[in-house]
Amino acid sequence: MTYVLHYAPDNASMIIRLALEHLGLPYRAQLVDRSVNAQNAPDYLAINPNGLIPSLQTPAGVLFETGAILLWLGDTHKGLAPMPEDDARADYLKWLFYTANTLHPALRMIFYADKYIGEDTAHQDALRLGLQGQLKAALEKLDQIAASEPSWLGGANPGALDFYIACCLRWCALYPQDVSRDWFDLNQTPALARMCSNLETLPCTIALQKAEGLGETPFTAPSYANPPQGSAT
Amino acid sequence: MTYVLHYAPDNASMIIRLALEHLGLPYRAQLVDRSVNAQNAPDYLAINPNGLIPSLQTPAGVLFETGAILLWLGDTHKGLAPMPEDDARADYLKWLFYTANTLHPALRMIFYADKYIGEDTAHQDALRLGLQGQLKAALEKLDQIAASEPSWLGGANPGALDFYIACCLRWCALYPQDVSRDWFDLNQTPALARMCSNLETLPCTIALQKAEGLGETPFTAPSYANPPQGSAT
Repeated sequence: MTYVLHYAPDNASMIIRLALEHLGLPYRAQLVDRSVNAQNAPDYLAINPNGLIPSLQTPAGVLFETGAILLWLGDTHKGLAPMPEDDARADYLKWLFYTANTLHPALRMIFYADKYIGEDTAHQDALRLGLQGQLKAALEKLDQIAASEPSWLGGANPGALDFYIACCLRWCALYPQDVSRDWFDLNQTPALARMCSNLETLPCTIALQKAEGLGETPFTAPSYANPPQGSAT
Repeated sequence: MTYVLHYAPDNASMIIRLALEHLGLPYRAQLVDRSVNAQNAPDYLAINPNGLIPSLQTPAGVLFETGAILLWLGDTHKGLAPMPEDDARADYLKWLFYTANTLHPALRMIFYADKYIGEDTAHQDALRLGLQGQLKAALEKLDQIAASEPSWLGGANPGALDFYIACCLRWCALYPQDVSRDWFDLNQTPALARMCSNLETLPCTIALQKAEGLGETPFTAPSYANPPQGSAT
């Protein structure tokens, strides 16, 4: 098998699964069992020393970091994102990095606030509140970009950034389970909401739903994963 | 002029200045005057709607996000980083994204903790403490990578990631001015310390020192900028 995707259900690996399915690439999905903290076991750390999911084994070596994998897949296969020679390359790159270094880290910090600020719940609440404000601003900005109808976000030919942002929107609605997510409303970002609806009609999304037990509306009206194996957290 | 770099002294724009100087590309440096909050003025927001520095005007459009600019410059000019067809591409990409979405955001949050967690100084202190732990771990990881002698970090031919990480190390030593930086010691990461020493011998670093008033040891023993124009904060 050319590619091995190290995944856990409803983790960032789902973004890469969407990309692999969309491109029609053959891959084997290898569960990283979070219920036994397998992401920090020696054999996984040998693949990704950061202990984060996803990793993708490829003929060119192991890749990790969601943004890096998307970029690499997009540069080695047509149909996922603007290529180096395309006019839209500069715009795609800046919003891919923005998503990877602003939207995605803010979500990670909301989910795992204790890792960033310790066990004091007052500190955690303050951090989540601040980050929710940052996330709302980031999503509004990305909504404006999608509304401007670039070729690489929210349009008729979904690709890398659609997958990345749609999964982030799903997580905004679902996690953390024990904290209010009232700050989030997909309808506040109508261009991104349309993008999510559109994605739910695609074969790559249907394959993802089945593989990871995500239900029929994983982006517009998500429910918690009920995967055939493994666990989301 | 082919390129216009929108910069402020000792801001992330210095990473891009190093890259432009290293490649010998003609550019005009356009000051964004932080002392009057010019990064949030309408004319700058028209260039970068996120109000962040740097932005780079190019024949292919405006670029922003430090990582995106480095990637784009490296793909359009030989000598900065592994190209799409190079064997080292996958490794370069994953550590570029790691630097952009783990190292760099943690620094930004330490510098501007109030933007992420509000005015309560107890919350801010807790956040800085947590992030310092994250930063130490990230720098140790990058030091291990540099010690393994890849072609694209810490070696005889410095490039994009050397510039990016060296500037982050400088900021660890200097900012925020009013908070202890005792957590940081460059000598704890010896491979990165050697990289910093090596960079200080390069013409691109000397050009940067002069343009932004950074002194003779901007990475190994940095002092606050004394720029001919503009202000760092």
